[in-house]
Amino acid sequence: MSVNLPPLGDLLAVPGVRLASACAGIKQTERDDVALLMFTAGTHVAGVFTRNSFRAPPVDLAAARVADGDVRAMLINSGNANAATGEQGLADAQTLCARAAESLDLAAEQVIPFSTGVIGERLPVDQIASVLQPCADQLNESAWPDVARAIMTTDTEPKAHSATLELAGSVVTLTGIAKGAGMIKPDMATMLAYLCCDARISQPCLDALVKEVADASFNRITIDGDTSTNDSFMLVATGCAEHPPIDDATSSPYLELRQALIEVAVLLAQSVVRDGEGASKFVTVRVNGGANEAECLDVAYTVAESPLVKTALFASDPNWGRLCMAIGRAGIPDLDQSKVTVDLDDVCIVRGGCADPEYTEAQGAAVMARDEPVIRIDLGRGECTSEIWTSDLSYEYVRINAEYRT
Amino acid sequence: MSVNLPPLGDLLAVPGVRLASACAGIKQTERDDVALLMFTAGTHVAGVFTRNSFRAPPVDLAAARVADGDVRAMLINSGNANAATGEQGLADAQTLCARAAESLDLAAEQVIPFSTGVIGERLPVDQIASVLQPCADQLNESAWPDVARAIMTTDTEPKAHSATLELAGSVVTLTGIAKGAGMIKPDMATMLAYLCCDARISQPCLDALVKEVADASFNRITIDGDTSTNDSFMLVATGCAEHPPIDDATSSPYLELRQALIEVAVLLAQSVVRDGEGASKFVTVRVNGGANEAECLDVAYTVAESPLVKTALFASDPNWGRLCMAIGRAGIPDLDQSKVTVDLDDVCIVRGGCADPEYTEAQGAAVMARDEPVIRIDLGRGECTSEIWTSDLSYEYVRINAEYRT
Repeated sequence: MSVNLPPLGDLLAVPGVRLASACAGIKQTERDDVALLMFTAGTHVAGVFTRNSFRAPPVDLAAARVADGDVRAMLINSGNANAATGEQGLADAQTLCARAAESLDLAAEQVIPFSTGVIGERLPVDQIASVLQPCADQLNESAWPDVARAIMTTDTEPKAHSATLELAGSVVTLTGIAKGAGMIKPDMATMLAYLCCDARISQPCLDALVKEVADASFNRITIDGDTSTNDSFMLVATGCAEHPPIDDATSSPYLELRQALIEVAVLLAQSVVRDGEGASKFVTVRVNGGANEAECLDVAYTVAESPLVKTALFASDPNWGRLCMAIGRAGIPDLDQSKVTVDLDDVCIVRGGCADPEYTEAQGAAVMARDEPVIRIDLGRGECTSEIWTSDLSYEYVRINAEYRT
Repeated sequence: MSVNLPPLGDLLAVPGVRLASACAGIKQTERDDVALLMFTAGTHVAGVFTRNSFRAPPVDLAAARVADGDVRAMLINSGNANAATGEQGLADAQTLCARAAESLDLAAEQVIPFSTGVIGERLPVDQIASVLQPCADQLNESAWPDVARAIMTTDTEPKAHSATLELAGSVVTLTGIAKGAGMIKPDMATMLAYLCCDARISQPCLDALVKEVADASFNRITIDGDTSTNDSFMLVATGCAEHPPIDDATSSPYLELRQALIEVAVLLAQSVVRDGEGASKFVTVRVNGGANEAECLDVAYTVAESPLVKTALFASDPNWGRLCMAIGRAGIPDLDQSKVTVDLDDVCIVRGGCADPEYTEAQGAAVMARDEPVIRIDLGRGECTSEIWTSDLSYEYVRINAEYRT
């Protein structure tokens, strides 16, 4: 089940990035579950990481090493999150980075680890270590589809996208991959996403860029409101392109690069929602007329995460009273219900806090039957606006999560 | 589906309270959907009402009239919430109160209205008005079971409880009724609950009491995290008992009465959870070791409302990693995961932020298979504690809410 998930298009090689995947049999034996990415010398890496207090040991290690500033490779595994594993989990992540570094002829500190999957179980260190050398031997520029598949957990399809832009006459290539599909309410980052480009950009500019890109993409989605212990979004710039270096976050090349990166990141983030656990609808919630952006987001997330709104979406039931309920419980101080407007696509449902006199149930039902409805809310108290993307709550969501470990 | 919901026991008449129900055919024709309660002169009434910004017109009217201080009757209907209905909804509620007042020989301002059911549709005023006189003609002291049924919506069974206590040698009688069963995360009050007693108590003391009782009972439950537009919890004291009047909120009779009221209110609130939409488990979440009560509640509600925790409970899957995830995303500043302990009933699962070395999956599975598991979390950072009650997330929850209006 997924909603209009785009198939993998052509994924472009990013000069300076080589990658490969392998099967360590962590959770099942049929498919690859380990990936290595290696970057050319001089590459800059920036990241944003989950703010969950139960942040997993590999995330702690990756964040510390990114801050140290000399990252040359990433080791990713799916099937086991190495979360809630304490000192042992940290030691396991360190061991595996050291083993990967040997295979890649790097120092251990130049490798950063990522894990996704079941929380609370120890990583099968020997199993993973045994595939690192073969994986390193196969590094190449074109394995993006294999790696996009290797990082999947409950995702039904891989998520990846490429784009190019021209900066000062030089072509810059962007390729990104991401995985969902549950425990998705990114808080600074999504579950796992990697966006690589060959732009030449300073580390401070890249650090600013990763936050801006995350806020415009992965930090605008929610499937179940549950923020993962392992969320990480990494932005990599190899510097292999020919354009003059970017070192000013207000310069035109910075803004052009940001726009291109946001476009790819939004497509990836939306793909995570389209393939959300049990998703039968891809829903845009747009809140206008807020006094500030924070309250627009509060309303949007309250609507998007309300189980009653989500089940109504699943049922294609234009039960707009539930939308009003969710808007009302978002905790916006002094919200005046008589100024609230709600539209579903092109149909005005609520005006002045009550049913629009022109509204008919048939109109609402027609919109709700679409697989990509847009819920547009106007709070009537300001000029601010925000938009997020979410999915519905189906029998299939319950089935997937009731059966996840069995 | 419900979890060990106690059957209606003997419901005691409360001297000074007469009540009756009738069928107005609001949503279906088979069962009563209107109720009248009338109180003797001198009765004090206090209430707490939803803080949802889309508060329904009847709630506004009831709150205003309770503040005016001369309430003598309540008119309740199920099947239609008269919410998101604006000025028309307010006028309809006023009209029906006036019609009820005529039948009861009261002034319109002495009647307060309550509605529960579908949001956003106009009340069928004439239908309801037509049953008011017959209903008034049947008022008696023993219709509690009928009225408990008449206020139900998706509840599978009525919820009511009686108790007595002795104050200064005089017997005081308490009888309460409540209805759930979805859109339940009370915020100062639950959907609809009425607790009547014949205690002699001053209005200021009753006003204090209603908040204390709500905070210890209805404000400690969540089914789906969705706060209704119509939440109201009303406390009625007719003053028919013989004990000396209570007018000091620190006096021993006040504290004894409070204790008795809390016990009834907790039973009613827990009944709402036991009969929560699709509930197959009644789950207690107890958080100890917090620096303050607010953070204990934040953790408890984040765990109780996590769709991933709720589906694991439904599946009887001891997926404790999801508990850690939910604890971690509660937003507690500087939470140290290495100090967190989690027990399921008598089984220690997590100690120092990781799996307890003694823990086996079989132990966890045995506890999760019980229908009333207790999740005990210790944050290891203080002496504060809090406890709430919730239900799981089942296929049945999705079915009920996908089919609610069809």
